[in-house]
Amino acid sequence: MNTVFVNGLVCKNPKDAKPEDFFFPGLDKASDTSKNPGSNVTLVNVEKIVGLNTLGISLARIDFAPNGGLNPPHIHPRATEVLTVMEGTLYVGFVISAPDFKLFSKVLNKGDVFVFPKGLIHFQFNIGAVPAVAFAGLSSQNPGLVTVAKAAFGSNPPISDDVLAKAFQLDKKTVDWLQAQFWNSS
Amino acid sequence: MNTVFVNGLVCKNPKDAKPEDFFFPGLDKASDTSKNPGSNVTLVNVEKIVGLNTLGISLARIDFAPNGGLNPPHIHPRATEVLTVMEGTLYVGFVISAPDFKLFSKVLNKGDVFVFPKGLIHFQFNIGAVPAVAFAGLSSQNPGLVTVAKAAFGSNPPISDDVLAKAFQLDKKTVDWLQAQFWNSS
Amino acid sequence: MNTVFVNGLVCKNPKDAKPEDFFFPGLDKASDTSKNPGSNVTLVNVEKIVGLNTLGISLARIDFAPNGGLNPPHIHPRATEVLTVMEGTLYVGFVISAPDFKLFSKVLNKGDVFVFPKGLIHFQFNIGAVPAVAFAGLSSQNPGLVTVAKAAFGSNPPISDDVLAKAFQLDKKTVDWLQAQFWNSS
Amino acid sequence: MNTVFVNGLVCKNPKDAKPEDFFFPGLDKASDTSKNPGSNVTLVNVEKIVGLNTLGISLARIDFAPNGGLNPPHIHPRATEVLTVMEGTLYVGFVISAPDFKLFSKVLNKGDVFVFPKGLIHFQFNIGAVPAVAFAGLSSQNPGLVTVAKAAFGSNPPISDDVLAKAFQLDKKTVDWLQAQFWNSS
Amino acid sequence: MNTVFVNGLVCKNPKDAKPEDFFFPGLDKASDTSKNPGSNVTLVNVEKIVGLNTLGISLARIDFAPNGGLNPPHIHPRATEVLTVMEGTLYVGFVISAPDFKLFSKVLNKGDVFVFPKGLIHFQFNIGAVPAVAFAGLSSQNPGLVTVAKAAFGSNPPISDDVLAKAFQLDKKTVDWLQAQFWNSS
Amino acid sequence: MNTVFVNGLVCKNPKDAKPEDFFFPGLDKASDTSKNPGSNVTLVNVEKIVGLNTLGISLARIDFAPNGGLNPPHIHPRATEVLTVMEGTLYVGFVISAPDFKLFSKVLNKGDVFVFPKGLIHFQFNIGAVPAVAFAGLSSQNPGLVTVAKAAFGSNPPISDDVLAKAFQLDKKTVDWLQAQFWNSS
Repeated sequence: MNTVFVNGLVCKNPKDAKPEDFFFPGLDKASDTSKNPGSNVTLVNVEKIVGLNTLGISLARIDFAPNGGLNPPHIHPRATEVLTVMEGTLYVGFVISAPDFKLFSKVLNKGDVFVFPKGLIHFQFNIGAVPAVAFAGLSSQNPGLVTVAKAAFGSNPPISDDVLAKAFQLDKKTVDWLQAQFWNSS
Repeated sequence: MNTVFVNGLVCKNPKDAKPEDFFFPGLDKASDTSKNPGSNVTLVNVEKIVGLNTLGISLARIDFAPNGGLNPPHIHPRATEVLTVMEGTLYVGFVISAPDFKLFSKVLNKGDVFVFPKGLIHFQFNIGAVPAVAFAGLSSQNPGLVTVAKAAFGSNPPISDDVLAKAFQLDKKTVDWLQAQFWNSS
Repeated sequence: MNTVFVNGLVCKNPKDAKPEDFFFPGLDKASDTSKNPGSNVTLVNVEKIVGLNTLGISLARIDFAPNGGLNPPHIHPRATEVLTVMEGTLYVGFVISAPDFKLFSKVLNKGDVFVFPKGLIHFQFNIGAVPAVAFAGLSSQNPGLVTVAKAAFGSNPPISDDVLAKAFQLDKKTVDWLQAQFWNSS
Repeated sequence: MNTVFVNGLVCKNPKDAKPEDFFFPGLDKASDTSKNPGSNVTLVNVEKIVGLNTLGISLARIDFAPNGGLNPPHIHPRATEVLTVMEGTLYVGFVISAPDFKLFSKVLNKGDVFVFPKGLIHFQFNIGAVPAVAFAGLSSQNPGLVTVAKAAFGSNPPISDDVLAKAFQLDKKTVDWLQAQFWNSS
Repeated sequence: MNTVFVNGLVCKNPKDAKPEDFFFPGLDKASDTSKNPGSNVTLVNVEKIVGLNTLGISLARIDFAPNGGLNPPHIHPRATEVLTVMEGTLYVGFVISAPDFKLFSKVLNKGDVFVFPKGLIHFQFNIGAVPAVAFAGLSSQNPGLVTVAKAAFGSNPPISDDVLAKAFQLDKKTVDWLQAQFWNSS
Repeated sequence: MNTVFVNGLVCKNPKDAKPEDFFFPGLDKASDTSKNPGSNVTLVNVEKIVGLNTLGISLARIDFAPNGGLNPPHIHPRATEVLTVMEGTLYVGFVISAPDFKLFSKVLNKGDVFVFPKGLIHFQFNIGAVPAVAFAGLSSQNPGLVTVAKAAFGSNPPISDDVLAKAFQLDKKTVDWLQAQFWNSS
């Protein structure tokens, strides 16, 4: 057998591996932030760099449109995120578990670092008039992304509107309208 | 030094430990489901049984009011959940990560078992006319609980309504109204 | 390559996975406890629910015959167990490691919860006149089961009777007799 | 606070640590094997070398009396063991989990290596006419030791003889006699 | 007891924790690269952000002097590193384990990403005429740093020159001279 | 599908596994120590015993030539090592991480045990006039081996001599000469 798999991914013999298996280019390029809600994540995970397999880390660049570009409330099921701001001004935060549901938020400027612990809802919001850029390390080669509003109102197939109306204290007409919208997930 | 701590909790000398350190009573008692959204979780975690420390498991009983008792969409940041229905009929589901945001749902009857993987949004909803009861194992002695709607709209202090309006595609007046509601978290 | 394996088991593409991959029915059914030693375990592990793979948890229902149904002393090499009594009265216990070999035991009634830490010998014994039922969460998708008496006296091929006679302080004739018995393993 | 604890043990500042914190002498000395069942384990774990804390390994020397010195069937709840024979001839084995309960055994001579997987019952038995010596690595700084016969018949307090009689298919008089014996645990 | 410790570090009650416990400023500032070998690492680990404890990740900024600023061959005992170049041109590489000792190297420009697997010797070298800057995520809240040349020739106390002369195939006079130098460790 | 893989290695059905899958002979044989630097490691890892897969431990025998046989400074990226001296006298040590780079060293005699923590540079040196022998347990089934001098000066292809000259404070002529040598790796 010539092909060996680990974690469901090809594991090369070191003799056949190349530097390119540990490489990915282009993280200096801004990505398009014109679509709602105004942010775009370029995630360098094990799908981009096969050499990351089993190594428990990935890297991301996040671009934000000026005046309100938003990386909406989301969760990484398998990773803590440590972010630093390269350009711009971000209002960021995360909410801790029950029973406190306390919000830890902060306005970050260039060079500031903030931690978003594994499995907690967090967001980043560009409150400046210029594009913002952040880089982040994540503690998994495959962090996963659960965008809360899209998972709730934009799943396929949809969650019963009875559930959502009761959970979000919305009338079913509003829920139905929300479920009919397009939900982007940066 | 007489007191030894592990994971921030007291770790007893085996000579001093008692069977009661591995015991908790009363999981046969239904808990009150009269408050919105109509469910109540009794979680037997390391706070209830100190002997669970470091052992990576906990147990829960969940009671549901008849005709729509809901354990609203939530996430356990540190645990997968395996649930079985003791009484009643539950519509349950979870939504997977980007890019698919696919809903895996099912109607469960007495004796059915379902898995909710770690870090994913999931819910259970009583679609029967009688009270429902479920038991669940969770793969952490301290699973954590992030009720999505409460974390988004009921955090303390609140998340900026600019963020929530954009993330949920709601107008700010609706967001402000939602933030003024009381958010229970079973 | 179409088939991806993780942990030696098929790992489906999320696009192909179905709710049934996270589902197992029938845990409300009592299983037969008429054979010695009078208990029967229905284990819902990764063999029953493929979606449990890598998730570190499983669930079990244990039925006990009235008047002495026994889940005999055994070990789970890869799991801690948290058990709750649904019906009946169980005398349960576990024995800790050297040098103490202390027994932690308790009589459990309906609704009581007890913890059996990973890798320790433990048992449950129905001391009531009616059938007993328990549910348990286990901290592995594949806990393993080492029934002590069967592993010692009923292995295939048998352990040398010199070893067993010395270890158990029995004469070899008794050991040989024991090795000739049928050893059930619930 | 001057004293820092990790895993319930003192964790020294590297500035204060000494080579002796990573050192233990005397593993060349045979230990007494005159007591039943004729073996003696010298375990170099985190209690002997504090520097092993968090490092997941320990080392053991095992001495066996000639003509039947036995390290009786036992389990390490937290460690796999890899053993090599320095002197003598050992009959060794382990029994795997349900449903197979298959015995993997072998006669080992000087220089032979054998693996005993975590959480499985295993034993080593000196079938030679001279003292035997083995060294073993174990995959935990605190492997734990559950000697099966002693845990079953020599726990403190004792397990109910109803349980043991049924589990081991022995009459209660034999169980009571066994429980009255002295159980050594090498 | 008011103070709770985890991993030897203070663990705050969520009620007392503040956003500042998850924050560190100033990563936009270049650090001094004038000292040999011409690089400087600003590591944001658990010593800088207490909220990183148990979360398994840290972040670093690395500055390189123009024309040969070097982050010399080193190892992180507890972390894989994923680095991206913000400014300048770096020649980077790592060497894999025996028996291959193969060098995986590459010239990185702005926006390029490269992985340095846990426990392997790696380096980054500024081959451009302007200062270079890189950011890196590391898969531990406390990665550790073993600068190879300093650990070999600049330890305190020194390693015997017999060992070093033989290991590095150098005469003892050269070893002694090397041991008398000052070894910086960025 | 008949062949199942775990960690990229064949995982046998227990029904097909044999005792030989957990066995390796010959660790009583001294290996050749005549080549520079005068030591030879016989490592019993998962390549030698397939049954070690996933079990997190391996065993090694190390032979040292008299009067200076050296196991040169090296790192195991995935394992802590616990060593005991069977014959002879070894000067051993390891160097801890930045900022201390403190050497922990000791002269070991027969029966002495010493710990070399994961990911730190360590060495063993025979300072006696007779051959020395040691046995070691390592906390991985595949510890890996990074011999520092060989990885630095003997990689394939070579590291740029600009990097090595600067890192080791050597002139490039000396680096070039070193890179032209043969580097053994025991």
